[in-house]
Amino acid sequence: MKRSLPKFKAGDGDRKEPDKSFNLKHYSIKGRIWIEKDNETFVGFGRIVLLERIKEFGSLSKAAKSMKMSYSHAWGLLDSMNRQSPEPLVKTEIGGKKGGSTELTLYGEKLIIQFYDLYSKYEQFLNSQKTLFDFLK
Amino acid sequence: MKRSLPKFKAGDGDRKEPDKSFNLKHYSIKGRIWIEKDNETFVGFGRIVLLERIKEFGSLSKAAKSMKMSYSHAWGLLDSMNRQSPEPLVKTEIGGKKGGSTELTLYGEKLIIQFYDLYSKYEQFLNSQKTLFDFLK
Repeated sequence: MKRSLPKFKAGDGDRKEPDKSFNLKHYSIKGRIWIEKDNETFVGFGRIVLLERIKEFGSLSKAAKSMKMSYSHAWGLLDSMNRQSPEPLVKTEIGGKKGGSTELTLYGEKLIIQFYDLYSKYEQFLNSQKTLFDFLK
Repeated sequence: MKRSLPKFKAGDGDRKEPDKSFNLKHYSIKGRIWIEKDNETFVGFGRIVLLERIKEFGSLSKAAKSMKMSYSHAWGLLDSMNRQSPEPLVKTEIGGKKGGSTELTLYGEKLIIQFYDLYSKYEQFLNSQKTLFDFLK
């Protein structure tokens, strides 16, 4: 799967979805996309990046820090995802030398992949609509 | 052009874009779409509905009222669109028996048509992605 996404480097502090944008000279078509369950956000771009960072760091606090997000905010997002997910997204270990860890499950990884798949098709869709507003110039 | 949009009746007070939503049992893919110029919103769903109402009523104040929007808010939205549009979206007449009027230009009508065209394709796109999250159940 190709991911034509903006690259996020750990620690760059970006956590919000960059609005997808396709330039029509000065005009651009913009859009956002997310998944809800029963009117509550299940995953959107920022939450998916958080899951990715958890995978990268094996730790919720490090993931949060890399996104310049408070631990409690990150915890709340993860909790919201976990409550809504049909299967666990993370497995946690408490204690031990390193003071515990949070690892992504295979299910969590699948969710990331499927979301980025959607996102990349969405990006292609928006890009394919550029000519619709050619009269704006 | 087919418009598979929710029907808005004048006076129903709806002015915000209904998030497009496609149900995956409890999960739904949601999205929004709009057009910006130089980082300012040019048109989105609500603004397009405002233009439609202006066309319907021939009056900005009646259009605003039908959307339960204050006149000054509606004026601000229209002003923002006009400032950003390459050609006039409305023509106004001041005074006269009926106290003036605001009519949509052909260019304004074209903008509505193109936006709804985009919107309807967007709706189709989201609908076509439903199966991506079949594993969520």
